[in-house]
Order: sequence, then structure tokens, then C-alpha cells
Amino acid sequence: MHNKQTPPKLRSLSSGIIAAAAVALGIGASSSVVADEFAQYRQFFQPIPSLAPIPADNSMTAEKIEVGKMLFFEPRISGSGVISCATCHNPALGYTDRIPRATGHDGQVGDRNTPTVLNSGLFESQFWDGRADTLEEQALGPIEADIEMNMPIDQAVNRLKEFPIYREKFAAAFGDKDPINPDNMAQAMAAFQRTLLTPNSPLDRYLAGDDGAMTTQQKRGMKSFVDRGCIACHSGPAMTDSRFHRIQVPGSTDLGRYLVTGNESDKHAFKTPTLRNVALTYPYFNNGGVDELSDAIKIMGREMLRTELPNREVADIEAFMHALTGDIPEFPVPSLP
Amino acid sequence: MHNKQTPPKLRSLSSGIIAAAAVALGIGASSSVVADEFAQYRQFFQPIPSLAPIPADNSMTAEKIEVGKMLFFEPRISGSGVISCATCHNPALGYTDRIPRATGHDGQVGDRNTPTVLNSGLFESQFWDGRADTLEEQALGPIEADIEMNMPIDQAVNRLKEFPIYREKFAAAFGDKDPINPDNMAQAMAAFQRTLLTPNSPLDRYLAGDDGAMTTQQKRGMKSFVDRGCIACHSGPAMTDSRFHRIQVPGSTDLGRYLVTGNESDKHAFKTPTLRNVALTYPYFNNGGVDELSDAIKIMGREMLRTELPNREVADIEAFMHALTGDIPEFPVPSLP
Repeated sequence: MHNKQTPPKLRSLSSGIIAAAAVALGIGASSSVVADEFAQYRQFFQPIPSLAPIPADNSMTAEKIEVGKMLFFEPRISGSGVISCATCHNPALGYTDRIPRATGHDGQVGDRNTPTVLNSGLFESQFWDGRADTLEEQALGPIEADIEMNMPIDQAVNRLKEFPIYREKFAAAFGDKDPINPDNMAQAMAAFQRTLLTPNSPLDRYLAGDDGAMTTQQKRGMKSFVDRGCIACHSGPAMTDSRFHRIQVPGSTDLGRYLVTGNESDKHAFKTPTLRNVALTYPYFNNGGVDELSDAIKIMGREMLRTELPNREVADIEAFMHALTGDIPEFPVPSLP
Repeated sequence: MHNKQTPPKLRSLSSGIIAAAAVALGIGASSSVVADEFAQYRQFFQPIPSLAPIPADNSMTAEKIEVGKMLFFEPRISGSGVISCATCHNPALGYTDRIPRATGHDGQVGDRNTPTVLNSGLFESQFWDGRADTLEEQALGPIEADIEMNMPIDQAVNRLKEFPIYREKFAAAFGDKDPINPDNMAQAMAAFQRTLLTPNSPLDRYLAGDDGAMTTQQKRGMKSFVDRGCIACHSGPAMTDSRFHRIQVPGSTDLGRYLVTGNESDKHAFKTPTLRNVALTYPYFNNGGVDELSDAIKIMGREMLRTELPNREVADIEAFMHALTGDIPEFPVPSLP
């Protein structure tokens, strides 16, 4: 059970890109910026945007976001009445739960580590196995899942309808005609989640031109991260390609993406997790089996790059990972009816 | 099992007080303020103060409050790693959980309804049975209780010591000498809880002189509340005397205060709950057995006043209860390490 993809030859690829970019940007030994040995690596990264991509059929209005925020904290749409989205996606804990695998309805423990919802508006697939493409498709799953919130969605709709304030807020967001329905719940939650971006990390500030925003060690880590090829999959503003790659981390027998597609080639494949705020979203991997960021980096070297990364390089990459912690959204918890 | 205290003859008592006060204040038929038939009732109430009483040995510093706030949201001081104070004292739900009886460690259901911590800094006894006098004495109980958070306090201390940020924040609050200890945890949590006041309710604004802050129905309810004698126990700024009164609500066999004192006279006695924000803190009574505020008012009439309150008066008192909802504290959930 150790089928892995052949790691792409990224070192040579990225070196080529860097050389080409250096020429294009006129960067060379004669550059007036002395500390610029790392500057050419900026091009491999993208900052957190000020807005997540907004789908044509779900405009982000203040009214929708407000309803979505209420629903995110709403435990009455769970079978027990005590579990909300925010239970596992805990705002105090980087919008995850910091335990290996999620604890849901009646103390049941799921198979997978809770992914953060921070920056999830930037993902192009949702869940570890990509069984939803969009936040709208994702939103209702955990409400209905018997080991998570465990409430049939029709029951959740009826529960919400009991509260005049929900009737009023849904009508304000979606119009007067039967506004409390599963589609609108999903739209509202997706709209809210798109607000959960974490801009202004040291990397973002460095990309914006602040050379002092990252330490030299973090910059060395950034260089290793590119040169070693981590950037091949951890790419884009959320540092994930939103695609699926085969990996079997210690202790995991989870078939991952295969359970969705039935394709042999998807066995043990999981979505590349975002690295944004990765210092806050421990423990790591699909089974939450690894507590320490440095251990996670070593395992990624071994499993995906077939390389035993030297300790010094692991430490540099770890330092760079800490440069990916952005501003966590700050808002008061809504008062629910 | 229906031993009750004789209800005090409050109607005549309060009428006497009102008459005396009316004379003292020069209020009478000739008063120039026409709408003032209720104004004389203001004297029976006290506004939420801008600060809760602060004990001499636990000054409220910003550093302490910050640590206390972190601890309030901290699930790693629970045996499961997923339960914090905020789980049951949920900021989204009036700092309670809106289920009849608290659900704690491993899904165990406790014997009593979760009391709100809003305005708990104004209480002179803590818990339904008063087994703690102060917030400092109260704070550690739920962490250790095996049906609540279920973690021995020494283990909780050791868990916190693992996090550099807690070592730093406790030192900032309590000095460098072994700052993470049970007493300091309790002090910090108590300091934080003292900030959870809810000023500016319609009643508070009415007391401050804004005649339009309460509706006429709410004012009639206020009058009934005083004339019927509810004010005898629901007195003071938090509208509780913090004392214990015998009451057996439907479905409850709980011995209450007796379990603390062993005194026969304390059988089925419970602390008068605060009525501040009572519209948010349903369901009601020690066993959370009553969902509707109007039903709770009727039961209080029957059980404590031996009176079947007329429906119109119940509705008025219910309207007055809604005038007790103040501004809920608004702050972002702290980001924990």
C-alpha cells in the first residue's frame, strides 16, 4: 500500500523559471538591492486577495453574510442542540479543533482531521476528498452527517422557521418567498465563509514589498520551499492547488478521494491542504496524526519528494510556515435568538 | 415534598414603601408629569453598574482579564480537549446553552440548567446551590467536574504550561514566580467574568430617566412585578438576592441547597436566578424544564406567591422581562495558541 506518484522534477523546473524571471526582471549580481538573493522567489507566491472569488449566482451581500454568520454559530440545527459549525471550526483555534480527528454527535469520532475554514473561499474543491466543489455544496453536509451535527436538513429548516428573527433575516437576505430553505442556508453560509480571509501575513507583507516582514531564516525557508518543489502543489493564494495527491501518512489507511471517484488512481489521494495559517492548524494530515510542524515537513519530504530533508532546511521551512499566519478575522460572536 | 416558605406579604409591604417614597419625592396627583403613574416604581430597581464589585485581593487588570478570556475559551483544559467554559456558557446564546440540562464530558447530561455568566460578577453566591460564594471559588469547579470538563486541575495547569504564550501572559498578569497555578487561573477567569455586564437595557434606560425606553405594557409589568412581590427576591442590580428559596418546579426532585448544607430547611432550595437577560436564557428553572417565559411566570406565581396570575398580568410581566435584555458584551473570540 505504498503507491505514490513520482515526484515531479521540480528543482530543475523551478530553477529554470527563476532564471527566466530574473532575466525578465533585470535582477542580477549588479542589482542595487543587496539583500535581494531571495527577491526573485516572490514571483512564486500570491498574496491573499482582498475578496474571495464570488460566484455569479451568490452575490455577497451584508444581509446574507449576517445570516451565514448566525448559522455558523447555531447549535439548534444539530440533533443534540449543542453542536454548531463553530464547535469543530472553532474561531479560537484557527477555525479548527486541534484534536486529531473531529468529535461530533454523541461523542463520535470521525475519520479525518477538521480542516480550517479560513481562506476556504479560495479553494477550488472542498473537504479532504473533494466531494464538494464549492462552499455552497459543502455547507449542508456536516449538518446532516450522522457523526457530525446529525440533523436532517428539513428538520433544520423547520427549526430555524420557529424563530421570528431568522424569518426576518432570511427575508432580508433572500426575499419574502419561503426564504428559509436549504439552498439559501447554503448560500448564506458560503457567503459568510468567503469573508474568512487572513491577509497581512509576513509573507503577504513581504510580497507587497516590505523586505523586513520576513526574517532571513524565513526567506531561506521560502527558497527551499520553492527549490524543493513544495510549491508545485502548495500554490496559489491559499497555497493549495485544490487537487488530489496520493499520500499515506503514518497511521492512515483512509482511501480518501477513491471513496468519491472509485478510481484506483485516487486511492489514498487527498486534497492538498492550505498552508495558510498552518502554524495554527495543528495537528496535521488527513488523520491528524502528527503534532509538530517540523515532523510534518520531514514526512512531506519523505513521502512526496522522496527526500530526507536536512534538519537545518526543515527548520528554515518551519520558520517560513510561521510567516503564513495572517490576520485572523475579528468579530463578535452573533447573539442568536 | 411540597414544603414551601410562606410567601411574604409583599403587596402591603411594597404599597407602604411606595406611599412613603411618593411623599418623600413629592409625587402626587398634582405632579406635572402626566405619564408618571409608574415613575414611583423606579426606586425598587437598580441599574447595572459600570463596574462589578472588585474584591480587594483580585484587582481587575487588563492583563488578568486577557488571560481569563483566553481560559474561558480554552478547550485544552478539558479531558476531551473539546469542551471549554464557552461550550455551555456560549456567547452566542446569552452565555448559556439553551438546552434543559448541561451536556458535558463524553455526552453526559448534568442535573441542572446552565446558568448564564452574564452579570455573574454582581451575584453574592455562585451556582444554583451556592456552593461557592465568589467567582474565584466558582471558576475551577467545572474544569474538574467529571460530567463537565473532566480534567484534574494539576493536569490543566501542566497543559497550560506547555504553551509559551500562556507562560508569557500569566507572567504579565501575575509576575514571574510560577504564575500558572490554580489560584491565578481562578483569579483571571473571575476578572474576565466581571467584565460580562449587560448595561443599557430598556429598564436601565428608563431608570436613567428615558420615559420612552419601556412600553406602557412593560411599565405595567414592572408595577405588577413590584406589587405582587417578585421584587422581594429578584432585587438589586442583577435582580437576584443571591439567596436560597425552596421551590419545586415541575419534574424536579433535586434537593438543591440541602446537598451543600445538609439542613432540612434547605431541601429543594435554589438560588434566585438573575432576571437580567431572562428572555435570552431559556429554558427556565434549575432543571430547565420550562421553555416559555410566560409559563415560567405562571409557575412562579403559583409556587412562590400562591397566586394564579391573570393572563393579562402574565403578559405584562413577560413584556417587562423583555425590558431586562441589555447590551451583550461584544469582543472577538481570542486566538488561542
